[in-house]
Amino acid sequence: MLLISLMKKLEAGTRILIKIKQGKEESGIVIESYEPGIILLKLNSGYNIGIKKRDIKSVKILEKPEKGEERDEKIKGKGKPRIDIIMTGGTISSSLDVKTGGVKWLTKPSEFFKFYPEIFDFVDIKIINPFMKASENMDSGDWIKIAKIVARSLNDQNVKGVIVTHGTDFLHYTASALSFMLRDLKKPVVLTYSQRSSDRGSSDARLNLLCSVRAALSDIAEVMLVGHANSSDEYCYALRGTKVRKMHTSRRDTFRPINCKPLMKIFPDGKIEKISEYKKREKGKTKIDAVFNEKVALLKFYPGQDPKILDAFKGYKGIVIEMSGLGHVITEGKKNWIPKLKQLIGKGVVVCAACQTLYGRLDPMVYSPGRELEKIGIIYLSDMLPETALVKLGYVLAKEKGKERIREAMLKNIAGEFNPRLGEDFLI
Amino acid sequence: MLLISLMKKLEAGTRILIKIKQGKEESGIVIESYEPGIILLKLNSGYNIGIKKRDIKSVKILEKPEKGEERDEKIKGKGKPRIDIIMTGGTISSSLDVKTGGVKWLTKPSEFFKFYPEIFDFVDIKIINPFMKASENMDSGDWIKIAKIVARSLNDQNVKGVIVTHGTDFLHYTASALSFMLRDLKKPVVLTYSQRSSDRGSSDARLNLLCSVRAALSDIAEVMLVGHANSSDEYCYALRGTKVRKMHTSRRDTFRPINCKPLMKIFPDGKIEKISEYKKREKGKTKIDAVFNEKVALLKFYPGQDPKILDAFKGYKGIVIEMSGLGHVITEGKKNWIPKLKQLIGKGVVVCAACQTLYGRLDPMVYSPGRELEKIGIIYLSDMLPETALVKLGYVLAKEKGKERIREAMLKNIAGEFNPRLGEDFLI
Repeated sequence: MLLISLMKKLEAGTRILIKIKQGKEESGIVIESYEPGIILLKLNSGYNIGIKKRDIKSVKILEKPEKGEERDEKIKGKGKPRIDIIMTGGTISSSLDVKTGGVKWLTKPSEFFKFYPEIFDFVDIKIINPFMKASENMDSGDWIKIAKIVARSLNDQNVKGVIVTHGTDFLHYTASALSFMLRDLKKPVVLTYSQRSSDRGSSDARLNLLCSVRAALSDIAEVMLVGHANSSDEYCYALRGTKVRKMHTSRRDTFRPINCKPLMKIFPDGKIEKISEYKKREKGKTKIDAVFNEKVALLKFYPGQDPKILDAFKGYKGIVIEMSGLGHVITEGKKNWIPKLKQLIGKGVVVCAACQTLYGRLDPMVYSPGRELEKIGIIYLSDMLPETALVKLGYVLAKEKGKERIREAMLKNIAGEFNPRLGEDFLI
Repeated sequence: MLLISLMKKLEAGTRILIKIKQGKEESGIVIESYEPGIILLKLNSGYNIGIKKRDIKSVKILEKPEKGEERDEKIKGKGKPRIDIIMTGGTISSSLDVKTGGVKWLTKPSEFFKFYPEIFDFVDIKIINPFMKASENMDSGDWIKIAKIVARSLNDQNVKGVIVTHGTDFLHYTASALSFMLRDLKKPVVLTYSQRSSDRGSSDARLNLLCSVRAALSDIAEVMLVGHANSSDEYCYALRGTKVRKMHTSRRDTFRPINCKPLMKIFPDGKIEKISEYKKREKGKTKIDAVFNEKVALLKFYPGQDPKILDAFKGYKGIVIEMSGLGHVITEGKKNWIPKLKQLIGKGVVVCAACQTLYGRLDPMVYSPGRELEKIGIIYLSDMLPETALVKLGYVLAKEKGKERIREAMLKNIAGEFNPRLGEDFLI
């Protein structure tokens, strides 16, 4: 066959060896390319490269893609350990859109599958696809939906672990929500993502997915977020679902543990290095407690902020205020927040304080403004992240009644949201 | 004199040599202690130690404190380079309060002076004390007041540089405000702080002040924040006023450069290691442009947030929204933010986007929600910090009229608030 017509007919999934005019050779699996002059190749290293067709001297087909039933059989892969992947959208479920230069959803699991054929070699994967959303469009209704699907999979005795693929923007909120909503966890629940779509050369999806599969097969019965530990493609971290935050718009290691260490280091070949204590895999059912009171808000305090903003939360049941420093708002002058806060608390609104520095621990007792705020009934949430605090408050308000019970529940360490051992020596 | 009565009469500022019963010796300057059974000693290393009076075998007075006129003369110290220190409050201007276990203000410069006698050895310091506030109680009126005082000092030809001591909670906001309000800077403007009050053993005030004096004498004509670079007492960083944020509730190296590198490393002995490019000291007057439109707000977006919150900003001229990821809010379903945002923008409110990940750079063109939001007129502020964005918006709205001029001003790099060279390789 002529080189030019061979290149035209090359199907995604074909393993080929390319000789380039300058004498270099590249071998890998063809993946779909939206630029007509380019062949996109997934190398064994996991990296994708684009080779200009006009630079190619010869193409040798090494292995044809599996077709139809053959591939379905591979997905079902009897005898291998079973993992359920719940696809909910995000960049990990998207590809480049040539029209806009942006990205578009992969709407079918089969589209997703073709980028990661090697994952199906060692596990039996079932893909569940409740919806496709960018994570900034997800809310507590979606968290409840995902929690219920995860619980159903976990309580299937054939399933070893569950992976949720998800957009990055608010992945840390969903990680928190699952941490509270899944009780007495007996198996691993892994959330993962990618910052670059799967058809890009620098995509982080492959390493994150491979390490997520390893985490889902591991002995860690925790809700954890698994992704790049640094800017290399060497290993991932598993991070506790309640102590993680998206800290960079675009880096592949965007998720960082806040006020704690990672749970473990995971290599794609299955090697695991334990870093922190964790709950171990065991027999039994996972309980589902997927409830949320939507009338909760998160408010960031800034200098000179008019306390009238608090009037906007009429009808709300709870507010988390991202306070400054050790837990302060304006407590003197015309913009003193104390009268409005007293009013809100008087009406039964639960007001909590979290820290806008993100790192560290609140302590209302050091300065007099903190002492005053503590006295009027604000619940100081120590080293809990503001994002986690919002999720926990919605969860607690859906379960508990009465000021004291709510306060107690907010201050009880339910899912590792507090780190009592947090010292001066942790990483920022 | 009997040991017991000698210890009772020891004045703050006296240099003494203590022999402890176990045989150890300690030499340093006595500082005021609020615990009657303790002598508090500032060692030459800068550390304070408390020694139990009952453990002391003997005390030898090495040098008596300077008194009255003598000390005033030292403050005026003719012939030494002149630096103005503007004290505005904060932990650096406070001491332990034995009654509450918290801290209280040092209300007089002389109280402040007694903790740092060595600073007065090599500079001629004038202390200006416009007010004493916790920084969470400061607002744009205070920023304007400080900017004017700083400008007056800078334009005094005898002054080499200016230091502002300030509470930590919102020091980064004031640093931003001075960066915008002081134009054509010709001399150093240094903001500094402490996380622990001056009478505590682990106080960071001494190193921060010493390095601030060095920075104020240096050739860097920038607004910079100077403080501990790490958890040791070895050196400080000077950080650009518009690219810095309080990132930890209590660590002494709480201030971190975001999306850029430090300007320089400063050692207390005066050694300076340049890290980034900066504007150099030169002759001429600094212009003052201390204006601010108070009708600006900062709003953090979270999942499921009702866009009705935007109704709370009636009468406002501008809002900075801390968006998720590359610059997203909800753009579908019942809680779609686009209609309310269009309404606000239609009414002439300037809406800007900053990133809640803090690190990284917004890019509305990657995903379709971003493209839609950009189209309706939201100004995307790239790698500018949300806190800096709020300050800049208030400043710009006080100066410029008309949509296009405001947009241009917001996107122009006035005081290093954008880092055009920001790549993947910077520190998180």
